[in-house]
Amino acid sequence: MSIDLDLAIRKVPNFPKEGILYYDITGILNDSSAFRASIDELAKKAGSYQFDYIAAVEARGFVFGAPLAERLGVPLILIRKKGKLPNEVYSKSFALEYGEDVICVQKLDVHPGKKVLLVDDLIATGGTLEAAASIFEEHGSIVTGILGVIGLPFLNYEEVLEAYPTEVLITYDSE
Amino acid sequence: MSIDLDLAIRKVPNFPKEGILYYDITGILNDSSAFRASIDELAKKAGSYQFDYIAAVEARGFVFGAPLAERLGVPLILIRKKGKLPNEVYSKSFALEYGEDVICVQKLDVHPGKKVLLVDDLIATGGTLEAAASIFEEHGSIVTGILGVIGLPFLNYEEVLEAYPTEVLITYDSE
Repeated sequence: MSIDLDLAIRKVPNFPKEGILYYDITGILNDSSAFRASIDELAKKAGSYQFDYIAAVEARGFVFGAPLAERLGVPLILIRKKGKLPNEVYSKSFALEYGEDVICVQKLDVHPGKKVLLVDDLIATGGTLEAAASIFEEHGSIVTGILGVIGLPFLNYEEVLEAYPTEVLITYDSE
Repeated sequence: MSIDLDLAIRKVPNFPKEGILYYDITGILNDSSAFRASIDELAKKAGSYQFDYIAAVEARGFVFGAPLAERLGVPLILIRKKGKLPNEVYSKSFALEYGEDVICVQKLDVHPGKKVLLVDDLIATGGTLEAAASIFEEHGSIVTGILGVIGLPFLNYEEVLEAYPTEVLITYDSE
């Protein structure tokens, strides 16, 4: 792409804990050309997949998933942390890069036979997205692909998410 | 607007606690015409304000603030809960409709003399937005307006936010 996303991404040492180099997407958001370019590129990649819904992971995934869904005219499903969604939910616990957590999707947002494209900002271990994908798959939806802005393949998301075509806009090779 | 947002908004009794009627914007997201119409209307209202940045409140505010910023080509600032943002932050505690909380903005996103338009999904007591606005104002930025999708004026946000022009797309009159 014509914009250098790497230049826009803020690198923050020792966040959220000692020894972790955090790739901060707020630098992309702060640069309106980089933000638009990232949505352009996600939309271009999305063109290779079939999907009825885009599902985005709380909270930074919303920042990319929402503009993408709005631009493509596709319904958006929110994948949220426990206790955040009203109505009945399907939930799944999973191991995070920095601990453990539970994510949820409203039951009335999951439709058997429908195709879902998952979107997140950063794919590290792939644990969150694997849990999200399994919520949809266990209830009859088909996860046709996963898109991220940043990928950290050295944390093995490609192995964890091998059941799903997964693409990112930029990768970093080590911490 | 041509789309009836009220039809799209899911009303959930007794969430997040007994006696509260929760206005759930996921119904808007699930209806791609309603979602697009809401961004169209926010963009139209934004046209009445001067601003250098759009700042959106975690997490549902991102869902509307991000597409708006991307469409208008304006940088986006994330207003987040404590511990979620890297780098040095300005923080502010405030009373919620259902408790108390702290919000933060990265110091490197706050620029004296710059104009900021705040965006959130639902404006109830106005406490979160008042805290967010005061972070910007106390450090020399100017909050020129506040836009929301849903407003609950019976919870008095108009009084709390009287220092800022505040507009919403739809209001509900009582719980």
